[in-house]
Amino acid sequence: MININTNYLNLKESYLFSDINKKIKEYKKINPDAKIIRLGIGDVTLPLPKLIVDGMVKASQEMGVKDTFRGYPPEFGHDFLRNNVKAYYKRYNVDIDLDDIFISDGAKSDMGNLLDIFGKNNILIPDPVYPVYLDTNIMHNNNVIFIDGNKDNNFLPLPNDSLYGKSYIIYICSPNNPTGASYNKEQLKEWVSFAKKTESLIIYDAAYEAFIDNDVPHSIYEIDGASSIAIEVASFSKFAGFTGIRCGYTIVPSSININGVLLNKLWKRRQSTKFNGVSYITQVAASVALTTEGIKECQKNLCYYKENARLLKEFFKKKGIWFSGGDNSPYIWLECPFGMSSWEFFQFLLEKCNVIGTPGVGFGKNGEGFFRITSFGTKEDTLEAIRRMDLVL
Amino acid sequence: MININTNYLNLKESYLFSDINKKIKEYKKINPDAKIIRLGIGDVTLPLPKLIVDGMVKASQEMGVKDTFRGYPPEFGHDFLRNNVKAYYKRYNVDIDLDDIFISDGAKSDMGNLLDIFGKNNILIPDPVYPVYLDTNIMHNNNVIFIDGNKDNNFLPLPNDSLYGKSYIIYICSPNNPTGASYNKEQLKEWVSFAKKTESLIIYDAAYEAFIDNDVPHSIYEIDGASSIAIEVASFSKFAGFTGIRCGYTIVPSSININGVLLNKLWKRRQSTKFNGVSYITQVAASVALTTEGIKECQKNLCYYKENARLLKEFFKKKGIWFSGGDNSPYIWLECPFGMSSWEFFQFLLEKCNVIGTPGVGFGKNGEGFFRITSFGTKEDTLEAIRRMDLVL
Repeated sequence: MININTNYLNLKESYLFSDINKKIKEYKKINPDAKIIRLGIGDVTLPLPKLIVDGMVKASQEMGVKDTFRGYPPEFGHDFLRNNVKAYYKRYNVDIDLDDIFISDGAKSDMGNLLDIFGKNNILIPDPVYPVYLDTNIMHNNNVIFIDGNKDNNFLPLPNDSLYGKSYIIYICSPNNPTGASYNKEQLKEWVSFAKKTESLIIYDAAYEAFIDNDVPHSIYEIDGASSIAIEVASFSKFAGFTGIRCGYTIVPSSININGVLLNKLWKRRQSTKFNGVSYITQVAASVALTTEGIKECQKNLCYYKENARLLKEFFKKKGIWFSGGDNSPYIWLECPFGMSSWEFFQFLLEKCNVIGTPGVGFGKNGEGFFRITSFGTKEDTLEAIRRMDLVL
Repeated sequence: MININTNYLNLKESYLFSDINKKIKEYKKINPDAKIIRLGIGDVTLPLPKLIVDGMVKASQEMGVKDTFRGYPPEFGHDFLRNNVKAYYKRYNVDIDLDDIFISDGAKSDMGNLLDIFGKNNILIPDPVYPVYLDTNIMHNNNVIFIDGNKDNNFLPLPNDSLYGKSYIIYICSPNNPTGASYNKEQLKEWVSFAKKTESLIIYDAAYEAFIDNDVPHSIYEIDGASSIAIEVASFSKFAGFTGIRCGYTIVPSSININGVLLNKLWKRRQSTKFNGVSYITQVAASVALTTEGIKECQKNLCYYKENARLLKEFFKKKGIWFSGGDNSPYIWLECPFGMSSWEFFQFLLEKCNVIGTPGVGFGKNGEGFFRITSFGTKEDTLEAIRRMDLVL
């Protein structure tokens, strides 16, 4: 008999979204005419800007002509795209070496695959959290230590004394999914300083950076010294609406040296052995998204979602309901009113308003009593949801 | 200090293709006017058929329109594509359950990522071999046992008595890269029977199946009972010329049960945690390639390469040089003439004919004294290479 990875047997099945769908189905059975508004899922809804579509059309056509046909892409990405990523970081006064940029099919793949290059480690993960951080580490049998996000720290936990004495891989997502909260520069400095002192490594998830309006960092590399202790994972999914196109990138600085071994070199070996690069058409699309004109067009879509977030934020503020996010993020993370649990409030919103959100407890024990609402719906739906909620909250 | 995956330090750097390029560069320095013909690399060169390009253009345009925009794809692939994969297997009288088909960004990713769901195992790998099988297993610290391919067994090793008594993960690639050799039905039956008796698992690499003309199996599932002991990895790279488009699929039958654990369920968990599906545009392209009309168009391109293979095969036959492949494969794997080593023959062909191939020793110790030539060049180049080789061989 061959051996399976028995760590998989320690994974908890996630029933969050299937439970949500079951409850909606039950409700619709009894109320077939209910006009349900879904503000639960973190997927974009606006179509891609025309200049990106034009880029993909042209790239597709090139593949049909002998002189412009392209075979295997470079494993780490086409230089035309890596150069545009480099230029994008320049906007934030961050200088990234071309050799440290790895184009991929998405942040989720990189988040999971990165663990390939590490041995067994202590892992520091906030609670509540994007479930992929936890599950991938269970698969690798790592020792996961949770750090509490809560109302007291605005769901932005910082290093504390009890954490010293060990080295960790630290997951930081800012602006955060699910809480919408963003670390400011001072707070990120604390994390970078902690990582240096404890010889730890930060994996920084910047998937939502394009939502930032305020003066909070877009990249961990805006913090001095971060490039020797932090990997950054980024995505075109939210910035350019590429959830269906699949493109992301990971920055593994050559300056990260673990006991004489360069992580950049290990990641290169990983990617050249277990990955064969990203579709030319996708890379052209991503590269167009990163031109000055492309960024402008993508930001138009983001402004649409941000206006929804603003409307939701103003509403909950008016109602005196505590929340984080809404600024710099498509997510509003609110405290369930009337002392309800996450699932009680889910049922309440479903029955009283026909509005769907996501119970916070689905993101970890500290999410109990909280609830995530997204701004990815249409403006009409968002306004209608607010109108209905206004009657009962 | 955090821990890296120290198995990476046991990997040998592959200098094969960089060494080849270095030698070409040196030669060109002294002979700047040399018209070098490259028959070394396994990448396709013909543009994509028009109806596939049209599919991609249409899919790209759909992404720019609100009503047809698509967000996150299903993690295991769109059903329109999985259904076409299922129908493709029907051509070979193989019935695949839709639920067992996993669409991916390519066979190389799947080949590497599959090891995620396994623990430590004995691995049976032929020598010579596609280097990815070996390197990925070194990364996972598996116990690799080589099985000899050689002239005596036509580079088609079969299970032998000394292998009984252990369970293995067995890598079989047929038609083979680099040797071009294909197992017939009787030989695959031996492997399936061996796997059953030893409670082993076969990972079957069918990347080159579309080159098959003769009566050899296209899929391991053409062998009775294989669906309880074999995973199959396939690709659109060679079949449809998708090396730059990135699409493949892996079949993990629900009937593979390892001590009560279904591999299908583990792979689902792996893919839903560390992967976010394949670009909609890519999946549309793949789906068009698998229509009756699409298959016909793709086969036109394959016929072009096959004609090159036939020309090369006829040439080496005329010269009395031993080779495998050429049938059912884009590769000719020949014994170096005049008792030369792989690298000696490389240098000989470079200097005497300005023709580039790949030294067989780059694929393992049993490749010493052999040489790989591909049919992916143009017909003109292939004929010219033959003309030049005819003068010196």
